[in-house]
Amino acid sequence: MEKFEVTILGCGSALPTLQHNPSAQIVDIRGKLSLIDCGEGTQMQMRRYGIHFMKLRNIFISHLHGDHCFGLMGLISTLGLLGRTSSLHLYAPIAFESSFHEQMRLFCDNLSYEVIFHPVDTTKYQCIYSDRSMEIFTLPLNHRVPCCGFLFKETPSLPHINRRMIDFHHIPLSEINNIRQGADWIKADGTLVPNSVLTTPPSAPRSYAYCSDTLFQPDLCPLIDGVNTLYHEATYTDDLRLMAEKYYHSTATQAATIARDAHANQLIIGHYSARYDTPHMHIEEAKRVFPATVGAIEGMMVNI
Amino acid sequence: MEKFEVTILGCGSALPTLQHNPSAQIVDIRGKLSLIDCGEGTQMQMRRYGIHFMKLRNIFISHLHGDHCFGLMGLISTLGLLGRTSSLHLYAPIAFESSFHEQMRLFCDNLSYEVIFHPVDTTKYQCIYSDRSMEIFTLPLNHRVPCCGFLFKETPSLPHINRRMIDFHHIPLSEINNIRQGADWIKADGTLVPNSVLTTPPSAPRSYAYCSDTLFQPDLCPLIDGVNTLYHEATYTDDLRLMAEKYYHSTATQAATIARDAHANQLIIGHYSARYDTPHMHIEEAKRVFPATVGAIEGMMVNI
Repeated sequence: MEKFEVTILGCGSALPTLQHNPSAQIVDIRGKLSLIDCGEGTQMQMRRYGIHFMKLRNIFISHLHGDHCFGLMGLISTLGLLGRTSSLHLYAPIAFESSFHEQMRLFCDNLSYEVIFHPVDTTKYQCIYSDRSMEIFTLPLNHRVPCCGFLFKETPSLPHINRRMIDFHHIPLSEINNIRQGADWIKADGTLVPNSVLTTPPSAPRSYAYCSDTLFQPDLCPLIDGVNTLYHEATYTDDLRLMAEKYYHSTATQAATIARDAHANQLIIGHYSARYDTPHMHIEEAKRVFPATVGAIEGMMVNI
Repeated sequence: MEKFEVTILGCGSALPTLQHNPSAQIVDIRGKLSLIDCGEGTQMQMRRYGIHFMKLRNIFISHLHGDHCFGLMGLISTLGLLGRTSSLHLYAPIAFESSFHEQMRLFCDNLSYEVIFHPVDTTKYQCIYSDRSMEIFTLPLNHRVPCCGFLFKETPSLPHINRRMIDFHHIPLSEINNIRQGADWIKADGTLVPNSVLTTPPSAPRSYAYCSDTLFQPDLCPLIDGVNTLYHEATYTDDLRLMAEKYYHSTATQAATIARDAHANQLIIGHYSARYDTPHMHIEEAKRVFPATVGAIEGMMVNI
C-alpha cells in the first residue's frame, strides 16, 4: 500500500503548555508532504520528529488564530536558510494576505525560493489542490473567525498486475504499463486476453479529514462520509458543552458524534484545552459514542 | 543585595536546533521583569523556567531578524489569554511598527490590555527607559539590519542605615527615611550628627549589557566601560573570522576582546551558530582572552 501517513506535531489549543504544542500536523501522501496549520514551534517539532523539511510542498492554514499560524514565518525563514529553491505553496484565509506579504518584505527579503500565497474561501466545500496523488478539499467550519478544515483524498491507484497471468501468457515487460493503464492483450494467434484477467483491482482510495476549530456541526457529515480517518477538535469534555458553544469549539462527545454519523473508520481527537492535564476524559467520553477513537499526542504517527 | 538577575531563555542563532532556542532572555531587577528579544518559542521557555508572566513589564527587540522576534505575537496573545490588564511596553526598531499594528489588528483584536509600541532609534546611545530601579540605554551595534544592544543600569541604592549609631543617638524610627535620603541629625542640645556617621555607603550600582547581533565593534567599549556582566554574541569560533565578517557577526575571541577592553567583570557568550554541536570551543577560545567567560545555556540564571 502506498504511503498515506499523518504525524501530529501539536494538538494543544490557544494557551501553549509544557504538555502540548499548538496545532500542526504533517500529511505524507506518497512522499509528498503537506503541513496543516503551523502553530508556534512547528519547525522545532518537525526537527524533533525527523520530518524532512525539503519534502514539504504545501502549507494549509485553517484560520487566523495565532495557535494555528504563529510558527509560519519562522518555518519559511528556516527553509530559506536551509537553501530551498523550489516554490512553497501557502493556502490561507484571504484576510492574511496583506499582513503576510508585509512580514515577508520585512523578514524574508532575500529568500532563496518563492512562497506562493493562495487565498482560500473558507465558506465553500471545493477542491483547492490536485495532483497525480491526491485532491484536497476545503471543509467549511463554524468558528469565531473564518475557518475551514481540509479533506485529503488519495487519487485511485492503478490496478495491480497479476504476475502469474502475465507469465502464463508470455507478455513482455514493456507491455506492463499499458496493461496497468487498462489495455487488453492480443496473443500471437489473435485471441484477446481481457484486462480483468491480467490485473486485480487497486486498493480503494483513502481519505483523511482535518476539522479544527469548530462548533459541533452535523452538516460536515455528508462532506466527509466514509472518510478513513477524521481528526476532529475536542477542546472540552461534555460537561463544558456551554463553554464549547460560547467559544465555537466542540466537546469530545460531539467530535465522536461527527465521526459516527460520517461513518469514519477512525477518529483522532485533539486541540485539548489547557485546563486539562491529560486527555483521558476526552478519550473515554468519545469512545462511548465512537469506539475507534484515539487521542492525539505530539509525535504520534497514524497510517491512514 | 537587591535582585538583579538574568535568565537565558535562548542562545542559539538563526537556525533553530534541538540544542538551542533562538534569542531571548529575562532581566529581573528588583522583581520587575524585562524581556530582551523574543525568538520563536520564548513563551514556552518562560513556562519551562518558571518565569512569572505577569511580572513582565517591557520587551526590548534588538533587531528585525526572525530569530529575535518571531515569538512576540504568541507571547502577547498568551498574556491576553491569561487575563493581563496592565500595559505592556514594546521597544523595537521603527521599521516594525506598521507590520506590528497590522498583526495586532488581525490576531489580537480583543486584547484585555494595551501594548504600547516605542520606536527605537538603533543608531544612538541614549536612555530609552528609566524608573526608580533602573535606566536602560540603547547600544548601537553593527549588523546587516538596524540593530542595537541594551545596557541595564541599576539606579544607585540609598545608603545603608548604621543601626548602632541610630540607637546610640536615640533617633526615632520616623526619622530613618530622612536619614537614608541624606539628612543629618540635630540632637536636643543643638549638636549636629553628620549623615556620614549615621549611614554606610550603598552598594555600587550594577549594570548588564546585551550585545547581539554585531560585527566586532571596539567602539562599544567606552559605552559599557566597567559593566558588571556583558552578554556578547559569539556566533563563530575564530577560525571562521571571515564568515563572521561576511554576516556581520562576531567570533568568541572578538567577544572576549570587547569584554577585556570594556573592563567587564564577567562575559557571557551565546548566539552560537547551528554548525557547532557544543559551545566548548567558543568558551575555551574566549577564556584565553578573557578568563571570566561563561557559555550561555538555556535555563542558566546569572546574578549580576
